[in-house]
Amino acid sequence: MLKGNAIVGQSGGPTTVINASLAGVIKGALNSSVIDIVYGAQHGIEGVMSESFVNLSERFKDPAMLELLINTPAAYLGSCRHRLPKEFNETFENIFKTFKKYNIAYFFYIGGNDSMDTVLKLSQYAKQIDYPINIIGIPKTIDNDLAITDHTPGFGSAAKYIASSIREIARDAQVYDNNTVTIIEIMGRNAGWLTAAAALAREEKEASPHLIYLPELAFDVDKFISDIKKVSQKYKNVIAVVSEGVKTKDGKYVCEGATADIVDSFGHKQLSGTARVLADIVHEKFGWKVRSIEFSLLQRCAAHLASQTDLTEAEQIGTAGVETAIKGETGVMMYFKRVSQNPYKVEILYHDISKIANVEKTVPREWINEEGNDITSEAIEYMLPLIQGECKVRFENGLPIYLKR
Amino acid sequence: MLKGNAIVGQSGGPTTVINASLAGVIKGALNSSVIDIVYGAQHGIEGVMSESFVNLSERFKDPAMLELLINTPAAYLGSCRHRLPKEFNETFENIFKTFKKYNIAYFFYIGGNDSMDTVLKLSQYAKQIDYPINIIGIPKTIDNDLAITDHTPGFGSAAKYIASSIREIARDAQVYDNNTVTIIEIMGRNAGWLTAAAALAREEKEASPHLIYLPELAFDVDKFISDIKKVSQKYKNVIAVVSEGVKTKDGKYVCEGATADIVDSFGHKQLSGTARVLADIVHEKFGWKVRSIEFSLLQRCAAHLASQTDLTEAEQIGTAGVETAIKGETGVMMYFKRVSQNPYKVEILYHDISKIANVEKTVPREWINEEGNDITSEAIEYMLPLIQGECKVRFENGLPIYLKR
Repeated sequence: MLKGNAIVGQSGGPTTVINASLAGVIKGALNSSVIDIVYGAQHGIEGVMSESFVNLSERFKDPAMLELLINTPAAYLGSCRHRLPKEFNETFENIFKTFKKYNIAYFFYIGGNDSMDTVLKLSQYAKQIDYPINIIGIPKTIDNDLAITDHTPGFGSAAKYIASSIREIARDAQVYDNNTVTIIEIMGRNAGWLTAAAALAREEKEASPHLIYLPELAFDVDKFISDIKKVSQKYKNVIAVVSEGVKTKDGKYVCEGATADIVDSFGHKQLSGTARVLADIVHEKFGWKVRSIEFSLLQRCAAHLASQTDLTEAEQIGTAGVETAIKGETGVMMYFKRVSQNPYKVEILYHDISKIANVEKTVPREWINEEGNDITSEAIEYMLPLIQGECKVRFENGLPIYLKR
Repeated sequence: MLKGNAIVGQSGGPTTVINASLAGVIKGALNSSVIDIVYGAQHGIEGVMSESFVNLSERFKDPAMLELLINTPAAYLGSCRHRLPKEFNETFENIFKTFKKYNIAYFFYIGGNDSMDTVLKLSQYAKQIDYPINIIGIPKTIDNDLAITDHTPGFGSAAKYIASSIREIARDAQVYDNNTVTIIEIMGRNAGWLTAAAALAREEKEASPHLIYLPELAFDVDKFISDIKKVSQKYKNVIAVVSEGVKTKDGKYVCEGATADIVDSFGHKQLSGTARVLADIVHEKFGWKVRSIEFSLLQRCAAHLASQTDLTEAEQIGTAGVETAIKGETGVMMYFKRVSQNPYKVEILYHDISKIANVEKTVPREWINEEGNDITSEAIEYMLPLIQGECKVRFENGLPIYLKR
């Protein structure tokens, strides 16, 4: 059992529960007899490289502060999109010099599949130079696209936000007695989990959203137009949900051409405007009023509507990460195994990171309907437990209050 | 004191509290000894013209249903954007034939300034033909642009949604350690009240949103760029809020050219894309990552985040409308007079509709700062009481539940 200090960092796009996992790690570290100080690396691995640390043991001595941290959206420590080099060069030497300097025996990294690459490389390098450290990945992504785990912390809250908001928008979009089409665009470049969550919005006797298109299947604009026409014969106000990442069968994003070719630092194309492109096409075709709506950042930061199940699990998996590290595991990611559906119950386990880093889990074909414009009841069954429970965000003066930085 | 039946209708863009006013009218009618049946006109005045009525006295006998109606977003009766003709032609004759047929002695119309034109014309026509009826306008608009009244039902909830969401987005938009600009677009064509509400998002020690541009002042793109540059020297992640309706000094909408010339049935241009146009300009100028966000319909339908103050007032003003009608008033709109700021207290009064219909109240110049890129503390003082209190939306199975249609 290693003794020493710990570093925790946050990486990739934030979620509403990424700080709950941070709080879980801090609690686990504060409760352990082998971890002395837990440092927070500012802006993920970049904070390690620049020695930008916050003493979290000091800052979170007051349990009330930790409780406020749990409900605070967006990476409290700051985040980064930084990929470590392929070669074990001086970047790694410097990181491990810093580890040595700060007597680091534990490293926790909260992130998605790109960030798990950092966990993989650091743990491989540690093994190579025989440096005694336990390096653990804590999963986080609204996209729910990590392998091995039943689901990812962050997904449930984003799904709850998306379903609640679409339920409300559907009410609004149906007040007029003329033909309208509302096209809602949801995040998720290659994995359609969040887009699928739109189906949860349906109320008894309510068919909206009427159409749902995931990026897992090729998108056919003509089929989309004929789907809208068909729905409009029954419902004057059609509500369709599309993933930002839908592509035509020749592999082109629907939004391509419409947006500048902006690429993020992981090399992913910045997408936006899919709904708008489709809205223009539909308006031209039918002449109806067509509205495009993008939820944008709101789906990953609307902490006032977080799923309590998600918050609780995110905190637990953080603490479990610390316990697993103390047992001597390294180069692993913590994950959820769903051991029971009714009642819903998960176990927290860990798995070799090399099977997880850089792998994307998409929605299985059998959870998408035959026609490719809706999801199946199995997908709904899978998602429903993850959005349960309302969080207890504190309001002051009419607005939610979050932890000051 | 007239005896007979009543009609209530909803018109214009929905709000999260328009059904609270409907519930207030229904309660007032159910409690009165002079109103027999209260009918709901489906899709506003169009429902009167087509005799599409719902018997609300029957449907809302169960008080639990009325309570659920209060928290349900979007016009429960359906809405319309229908302007009555300028001439008192057969349209009016037919409407009053219908009034006679259904023994209507009371007509309540819940809407904004365009809808108040309907109240004005109907009450003038009734006077001209000497038809005994009391016609009352109940104010409603998220835009807060009605004359005479201190504020409009619907504004407080939209303001609370906007401020809460911007507070959360500001967290998310500040996690990375590189220069970014986030431009948020807010509804309000000519009146900047909702855009001003963005300022409420500021937390102690938090300067975001850093810049706020209302449609009341001419928008100067060069000044905007230099404002962003200035803020970026202090804060790497700049957050700017713009009204959808900002115009350059030659009277052109900033978004013009970027969107198709779609016009709604009141003849208003459909605006959207202002933030996107500005984001492109800023990206081209600085090369930074720039994100544009439109709240779109969410700002007027996010019932789960409604202001309890707004909900309570919306219901009260509906009931007060019925009481005022029964006293024999007609051709008036109900309004709020703020009689005390500390503690906040309003009185509900009524005013001649001719001074209100078709008039827009904008944000006074002295509530916008000298530079034109922020609002003053007086504006914040004015808005703060209106967003107080959290609503009690019921959740079932992880999602807010609303009244079935």
